[in-house]
Amino acid sequence: MANISKKVSWSGRGDDRGERTPLLNGAEDGKYNRHVLNFVFQSLDYDNSENQLFLEEERRMSHMGFRCLETRRWVICGLIGFLTGLIACLIDIAVEKLAGYKYSAVKQNIEKFTEFGGLSISLILWAVLNSAFVMVGAIAVAFFEPFAAGSGIPQIKCYLNGVKIPRVVRLKTLAIKVFGVICSVAGGLAVGKEGPMIHSGAVVAAGVSQGRSTSLKKDFKIFEYFRRDTEKRDFVSAGAAAGVSAAFGAPVGGVLFSLEEGASFWNQMLTWRIFFASMISTFTLNFFLSIYHGKPGELSSPGLINFGRFDSDSVQYNLYEIPLFIIMGALGGVLGALFNVINYWLTIFRIRYIHRPCLQVMEAMLVAAVTATVSFAMIYFSNDCQPLGQDNTEEYSLQLFCADGEYNSMATAFFNTPERSVRSLFHNPPGSYNPLTLGVFTLAYFVLAVWTYGLTVSAGVFIPSLLIGAAWGRLFGILLSTITSSQSIWADPGKYALIGAAAQLGGIVRMTLSLTVILVEATGSVTYGFPIMLVLMTAKIVGDYFIEGLYDVHIKLQSVPFLHWEAPPTSHWLTAREVMSSPVTCFNRVEKVGRIVDVLSNTSTNHNGFPVVAHTTENDEPGKICGLILRSQLIVLLKHKVFVERASSRLSHRKLQLKDFRDAYPRFPPIQSIHVSQDERECMMDLTEFMNPTPYTVPQETSLPRVFKLFRALGLRHLVVVDNENRVVGLVTRKDLARYHLGKDGLEELHLAQT
Amino acid sequence: MANISKKVSWSGRGDDRGERTPLLNGAEDGKYNRHVLNFVFQSLDYDNSENQLFLEEERRMSHMGFRCLETRRWVICGLIGFLTGLIACLIDIAVEKLAGYKYSAVKQNIEKFTEFGGLSISLILWAVLNSAFVMVGAIAVAFFEPFAAGSGIPQIKCYLNGVKIPRVVRLKTLAIKVFGVICSVAGGLAVGKEGPMIHSGAVVAAGVSQGRSTSLKKDFKIFEYFRRDTEKRDFVSAGAAAGVSAAFGAPVGGVLFSLEEGASFWNQMLTWRIFFASMISTFTLNFFLSIYHGKPGELSSPGLINFGRFDSDSVQYNLYEIPLFIIMGALGGVLGALFNVINYWLTIFRIRYIHRPCLQVMEAMLVAAVTATVSFAMIYFSNDCQPLGQDNTEEYSLQLFCADGEYNSMATAFFNTPERSVRSLFHNPPGSYNPLTLGVFTLAYFVLAVWTYGLTVSAGVFIPSLLIGAAWGRLFGILLSTITSSQSIWADPGKYALIGAAAQLGGIVRMTLSLTVILVEATGSVTYGFPIMLVLMTAKIVGDYFIEGLYDVHIKLQSVPFLHWEAPPTSHWLTAREVMSSPVTCFNRVEKVGRIVDVLSNTSTNHNGFPVVAHTTENDEPGKICGLILRSQLIVLLKHKVFVERASSRLSHRKLQLKDFRDAYPRFPPIQSIHVSQDERECMMDLTEFMNPTPYTVPQETSLPRVFKLFRALGLRHLVVVDNENRVVGLVTRKDLARYHLGKDGLEELHLAQT
Repeated sequence: MANISKKVSWSGRGDDRGERTPLLNGAEDGKYNRHVLNFVFQSLDYDNSENQLFLEEERRMSHMGFRCLETRRWVICGLIGFLTGLIACLIDIAVEKLAGYKYSAVKQNIEKFTEFGGLSISLILWAVLNSAFVMVGAIAVAFFEPFAAGSGIPQIKCYLNGVKIPRVVRLKTLAIKVFGVICSVAGGLAVGKEGPMIHSGAVVAAGVSQGRSTSLKKDFKIFEYFRRDTEKRDFVSAGAAAGVSAAFGAPVGGVLFSLEEGASFWNQMLTWRIFFASMISTFTLNFFLSIYHGKPGELSSPGLINFGRFDSDSVQYNLYEIPLFIIMGALGGVLGALFNVINYWLTIFRIRYIHRPCLQVMEAMLVAAVTATVSFAMIYFSNDCQPLGQDNTEEYSLQLFCADGEYNSMATAFFNTPERSVRSLFHNPPGSYNPLTLGVFTLAYFVLAVWTYGLTVSAGVFIPSLLIGAAWGRLFGILLSTITSSQSIWADPGKYALIGAAAQLGGIVRMTLSLTVILVEATGSVTYGFPIMLVLMTAKIVGDYFIEGLYDVHIKLQSVPFLHWEAPPTSHWLTAREVMSSPVTCFNRVEKVGRIVDVLSNTSTNHNGFPVVAHTTENDEPGKICGLILRSQLIVLLKHKVFVERASSRLSHRKLQLKDFRDAYPRFPPIQSIHVSQDERECMMDLTEFMNPTPYTVPQETSLPRVFKLFRALGLRHLVVVDNENRVVGLVTRKDLARYHLGKDGLEELHLAQT
Repeated sequence: MANISKKVSWSGRGDDRGERTPLLNGAEDGKYNRHVLNFVFQSLDYDNSENQLFLEEERRMSHMGFRCLETRRWVICGLIGFLTGLIACLIDIAVEKLAGYKYSAVKQNIEKFTEFGGLSISLILWAVLNSAFVMVGAIAVAFFEPFAAGSGIPQIKCYLNGVKIPRVVRLKTLAIKVFGVICSVAGGLAVGKEGPMIHSGAVVAAGVSQGRSTSLKKDFKIFEYFRRDTEKRDFVSAGAAAGVSAAFGAPVGGVLFSLEEGASFWNQMLTWRIFFASMISTFTLNFFLSIYHGKPGELSSPGLINFGRFDSDSVQYNLYEIPLFIIMGALGGVLGALFNVINYWLTIFRIRYIHRPCLQVMEAMLVAAVTATVSFAMIYFSNDCQPLGQDNTEEYSLQLFCADGEYNSMATAFFNTPERSVRSLFHNPPGSYNPLTLGVFTLAYFVLAVWTYGLTVSAGVFIPSLLIGAAWGRLFGILLSTITSSQSIWADPGKYALIGAAAQLGGIVRMTLSLTVILVEATGSVTYGFPIMLVLMTAKIVGDYFIEGLYDVHIKLQSVPFLHWEAPPTSHWLTAREVMSSPVTCFNRVEKVGRIVDVLSNTSTNHNGFPVVAHTTENDEPGKICGLILRSQLIVLLKHKVFVERASSRLSHRKLQLKDFRDAYPRFPPIQSIHVSQDERECMMDLTEFMNPTPYTVPQETSLPRVFKLFRALGLRHLVVVDNENRVVGLVTRKDLARYHLGKDGLEELHLAQT
């Protein structure tokens, strides 16, 4: 938390800190949540605290030492990739097995009852099976680790942006996440298993790079050098990239995802390591899946979702199709925005009324049952029979009321894992689906997917988006070839399915470069790069007109102080003086323990960074800056009782080392847990050795965009504002910058609130 | 230039500014050049000077205004892509035509003389034709624009790194470059036309984004807002990316190239625009080439080099092949290092003895003639006859002494543009080449390529590298299948040719992520991503053990102050105090014109940035910082005679505007061209309105890595070092940071020299 005691509000709204609004709850009007920044989120310290201890350690290190560190980083990245790939493999196999059992059971049941009637029993069986799976998953999430809910991408976005989201990179979260996603996909919900992979990769990275697990209370005593936010965040980027890579078989896309979401500063070696982790991840998955499928060494499944091979004939597109693609992009943007708006209101409804875990589990079970029912009804009432192909790619082809040698085409879309349905829509030959089936399917699946996203289950939105898009895209293609009534190049509906899928996904998540590359890598062919880029761009422009992307909607709903790439364009009016928090609580170089304890214990401010000044007087004259010290550092100092009085009796007390700080990282004890006696309160503490002696500073006249750029480029947590005498006059933190955003009527300022 | 007047040298070498060594010339020992930084290179101002004029303009601008700017940026990027694509198309068609004429003529001649003997006449014809083409190209380069020599990639790397290389982004350079590359490729040199595309794209970008050409003295009065280094560099990144994209059909690779070389700060919107330019570029090329080839709309040539389609059967690789790939990578690293070492010594030789333009032209002609002779000899003495395939893909297949229906396979490698040869090596069926042919070809082409790179012609090194690698890679594959004597998966030599090409190219240029993506995109299949990455990584590690990459070698030979990604690892010992230049020449807020003119005219210092202080006294007490002003700004002020005395008679003199600075950008007149009378020398100038009031500052104790990070992340040109009273004590510039590098014995310091 920033040193926000009094806020000089440029917009004249005055002091807004008095309001204490419960997070996401009890807001009088629904819109309110969008104008709040939550007070509790803390930032990562991406900037190294270069204090004396740190410099001594760095200076002691030889050239070989740095080489070893670098090698260790590579090893860690390799491990991250390997473990992420293994997890992806586990999820894939578990889902395949469980879904296989379920569909076989239901299929047998349906076949049994088709002739005699009594299909309602099949429906009930299906619904019960679905609900059971989902119930197990939802209970795990709702009761044991609510942070494992959803895809985890918004959380990882925030983490990479520099916001410390509590519990997000814990081992327990990973376990629940993996278990939950298996249950929800096997439970037939309109979800994918790809999004959670990104979160899983990030957790793996955070765990491996620290060489210990605080959840398991196990310290391997390795990689201790990396126990700080700077290094950890770099590894988490690699983990997220490995996750994307395993999910989509898209190593380059993974790197770009990490960069798009996280990088404040591009470093070639780091990027190359991230790429290494991504490559290892997709390779591991590919390798183990090839063994599982009984064809070891035949590396044909680089990702969890495989778009299948687009043959060279169908891959071509013509110049005159480009306007059509743009139209599809716009359509995707509109549908995506619609998705996001509905989901936004639904989420607000959920926050307000469905916040008890058991209610959440029940809602998830309800959705599972409804999904089964809708699917069943659609299959039942559709009479779209198609002849069974020679290759018989449909694993669970349902004959139902079709003639022998035919199957129900609606069932291929519903009676299947969504990944397979997507692939069918891309590759089944023209004529496999009739337009009505596709239309009804799009509508039904759209509703189900909107309802499902945000449930208290672990699940992703990529695959449902792709599926919706592929369905209406294919429909679009079929209609086109009907209108032109020629069997020309138009007639390949698979191509339009791909473009539709891209448009819909782009309209919902609004990722740009990384998504283009992910989709191109997933199709395995670079030929579609240009149309996919055009479609994603159009979808983003059109969609942004209505509402932000789905992840951003959810980030805003969480009131996270998210920093965008640049300051809002019209913010040159503001200077550091207006933006900063002041007055700032400062410490002297040699400070009384009592004062430190009092300041740290003050729950109403809960500051995290304190400028150290040469001399503070009790009157309002500010002191000259000579350093910056963090709450976490002070806590460690207090815990080890590094007081000046004790230092004189040197023999009794060893010198504090960087290791003591690393051991306490990342869960520094709260101040309340540290006992300081009345005698000790009178002692003094010398902060010189531990503070960062060269914090970044800016003068008061610096414009907001300039402050923003410095803050963002260096991943700062605190930026000290000084006057021309170098005296501390204010402190800029993440929340001070994230408050400003561009609204409909120009620059707007968000309120700060605390849960 | 920095304010370097006295250098406190930590290594105790003392003042090294006295030495005045001519650039790259006359050095007593050859190694000397590697330990020098050239004094004349200036930096780009990537940091905006946020002075009052700028802030006023920004504040006047409405939200709509910013939208318009953003739209204009997109339009410019589209234009950059389009024009770059057109240029690529022009080069491609011109080379095809010219080379076609040449090879037809020589082929006819050879066929005529094969029966009767007298082939020496054919040889002479070939050599003369080659030399003639190369002569024209070399004359254009050597006499009209020496900066158009080579691939231009080192120059663009430097530009994106933030070094202002003179004349590098001029229209004239582009014209000579394009003309030169057509001549050298048509002249049969061992060069490619891909590298120069990157330079061409960059020039196009610099031209288009400024809305005027200073060479043509034509100002279109558009895009005036973008006339500053910050914006221009962003567009140049887009141009370079568009160039890569057109050269290799690799839009994502292009973006990554720009980022790897240039980005100090990743900005999503910027990246997305760069990607747009890249996409448009490859699309334009593709579209126009498809028209040229008579199949409009069939978009099958996304780049100048096309690796051809790797079919799904040959694309597969097996796990046990991976160690082989790694061995090939190591081999590529060694061969690449050998290439670079030889080329390094050759370049030093050239710098010392071949610096007169006519000598340069003669050397180029000699190389062209030798290339023809070697090629002819190899074709003549090889008796490797192969049957003509059904498809007859060899356009200029030479029968020579082969039986009817057969052709000389050595001729496919030599009697062809290098792009076609690469493709043949990748895709010709097993058995097309015999091992001896390949071995001799590798050796001969290696020598020719080493000799050719660095000639005073416009040419790239990508294709020769690929060709050498493809040749020994294919040889490797053939030997493998001979050893194992089974027609298993090993037997596909095309795969090994691809891996060899990647290894060789990686060993020479040492690019990492971007090169992987470029090669993957050029093959059009993502399957080879993992092996290519492994190979490039191995090649880089092995090669770096011996010598840097080819571009870095040439950058070092030019003594460019190039900033790497991070400070050398063992540099925590150094602080800003040791690194900075001091004392600094400062100006007062209101300064006497005479003093300004004197300081600017002092050729021995040639400073470019001057801290503005509240009050300088003549004694050694430094003043408090209150701003920073650039030489270019002072020049404009002097030119417009913005003196305090004149300001009082307001009517006579309009207020200076940002436009006046933009009009003078980028070629600010030298101080000598501005006449200041003796009276005017006594006037005062108020700098307050024009200086940057909030320059970045650091305290003296800041460690070098911290200074480096700030400098690099924000793309600074000057960083003011202050004491704890905010008084100016030093200035850190690019050269102060680039001086330190990691040598064999730890940290080393480079000398500064001036041409």
